[in-house]
Amino acid sequence: MGELHSYKGIAEGVQNTNYLVRTSKTSYILTLYEKLVETKDLPFFLGLMEHLATHNISCPLPVEDKKGQVLKTLSGRPAVMVTFLDGFSVNRPKRLHCGELGTALGAMHVAGADFEMVRPNALTLMDWRPLFEKCGENVDDIHPGLHDVITTELTFLENNWPKDLPTGIIHADLFPDNVFFLDDHLSGLIDFYFACNDFFAYDLAICLNAWCFEADSSFNMTNARALLSGYEQTKPLRQQELEALPLLARGAALRFLLTRIYDWLNTPNDALVNRHDPREYLRKLRFHQQIKNVSEYGFGK
Amino acid sequence: MGELHSYKGIAEGVQNTNYLVRTSKTSYILTLYEKLVETKDLPFFLGLMEHLATHNISCPLPVEDKKGQVLKTLSGRPAVMVTFLDGFSVNRPKRLHCGELGTALGAMHVAGADFEMVRPNALTLMDWRPLFEKCGENVDDIHPGLHDVITTELTFLENNWPKDLPTGIIHADLFPDNVFFLDDHLSGLIDFYFACNDFFAYDLAICLNAWCFEADSSFNMTNARALLSGYEQTKPLRQQELEALPLLARGAALRFLLTRIYDWLNTPNDALVNRHDPREYLRKLRFHQQIKNVSEYGFGK
Repeated sequence: MGELHSYKGIAEGVQNTNYLVRTSKTSYILTLYEKLVETKDLPFFLGLMEHLATHNISCPLPVEDKKGQVLKTLSGRPAVMVTFLDGFSVNRPKRLHCGELGTALGAMHVAGADFEMVRPNALTLMDWRPLFEKCGENVDDIHPGLHDVITTELTFLENNWPKDLPTGIIHADLFPDNVFFLDDHLSGLIDFYFACNDFFAYDLAICLNAWCFEADSSFNMTNARALLSGYEQTKPLRQQELEALPLLARGAALRFLLTRIYDWLNTPNDALVNRHDPREYLRKLRFHQQIKNVSEYGFGK
Repeated sequence: MGELHSYKGIAEGVQNTNYLVRTSKTSYILTLYEKLVETKDLPFFLGLMEHLATHNISCPLPVEDKKGQVLKTLSGRPAVMVTFLDGFSVNRPKRLHCGELGTALGAMHVAGADFEMVRPNALTLMDWRPLFEKCGENVDDIHPGLHDVITTELTFLENNWPKDLPTGIIHADLFPDNVFFLDDHLSGLIDFYFACNDFFAYDLAICLNAWCFEADSSFNMTNARALLSGYEQTKPLRQQELEALPLLARGAALRFLLTRIYDWLNTPNDALVNRHDPREYLRKLRFHQQIKNVSEYGFGK
């Protein structure tokens, strides 16, 4: 890896401690896993990054020591070194970013096909009601009537969630923070700590919510069309996946609405972490509730 | 400067916001000055860094834009880009580090001789009593009898502080955090935001306190001798400077004791910043109070 030249603690992510390490050869990210990450899942996350990075997906590659070990211990915590990716995330994604994102997402789904480890999604349909119950009685403090909206939506999704869509490895948290660009080209995907096995199209629904709404919560159809057509360049969608998108987008909106409500009600006001406004995802949920047919997003076969 | 390749917020210093910026050519540190830094002093600090960096002192060089401007505005704050220095600070300085430090400190004092701007020390003798008064009535909560120790010491120093030692540009905050090493050689000095005009030997006294005590507050004579002999390789001490060292070391101990007391009593318990234990500097002050002659440090002419 070369001789150590410098290391700086960096403000990246909220779950782990990260250092940018420079050596005489190149740069790396050193991650120390804090208690928030389930240690038992680390071999899955690291194995997936290695699998993807060696299958032409630009993502951090965990570095092996001389004995071939990736996961080590440093300062009493699980720790790993990964390769450094150039690039930086965009605050306001435009059409070209969404197109690049779609293509990379499809490529990731294809590349994950022969990854042999399995991790069930820990934040899917069956987990949402217990999470909602953990949010307690004060949900309406965030927005009047919010408790009822969620109760109704949960029942609807429990009765209508698809069962037989194509599944595989998904990223499950591909927000703009986790995608790097360089000269308007996608240069890398990071933060695989929610990756799991679930419907491919659910990953696309998460991206639809995270990349295709304006700051005022209006839907950006141009971005959405670019996302989908980019995706289809590497992994064509089946008709059933396309038709399930409005429902999956409702589920994806509810999933982030619920975690944001939980964090909002359980993060002290003076904590370091920026809390994300749950109401952003309430507005996205309401948008998708009005969609009767996937063609209303501006796409369809 | 090249094309932007990445930027990461780094955990460096407590007064400013810093980013490590990588371009297609090299790396830089981008600093945004927060309200804690006196904006009026920035031209002095930046001018000094430029002066020293162009006089063979390894320190960050502020980068000029195409119009020759260094200090710019970014996100509503004064901002500057400086060159990135390889290296990292040592937690437990040994003899060789202290020797390198002394040589670099002397070289810095020499190189500053023809720097034309002037900034009086804002934390010297005449500032200590007002700072002590601002600390309020609860000083003894930190250590029983502390208030009396400081009162007596202030009077002693006010009556005995030297008036006619050689003066010039000093760093005034050269703690191990602010000195980088690479392969056991000093690779750079950073953080010039306390730099000012004062006695050269006072800078040495600050280093004596910061580099030549063990974690248990015992004095490390080996480190101290290395510091002094390193210094004399680049800037021989006059006899009067050497003889003043015990007194200057008391003053330097009191200065950091007072700022640590002030910060200790005025930083909320849940604040982000690590408070430094003031008692460390009380122990150092007491050590120097017992020194009757500079030869007791293990050096002398």
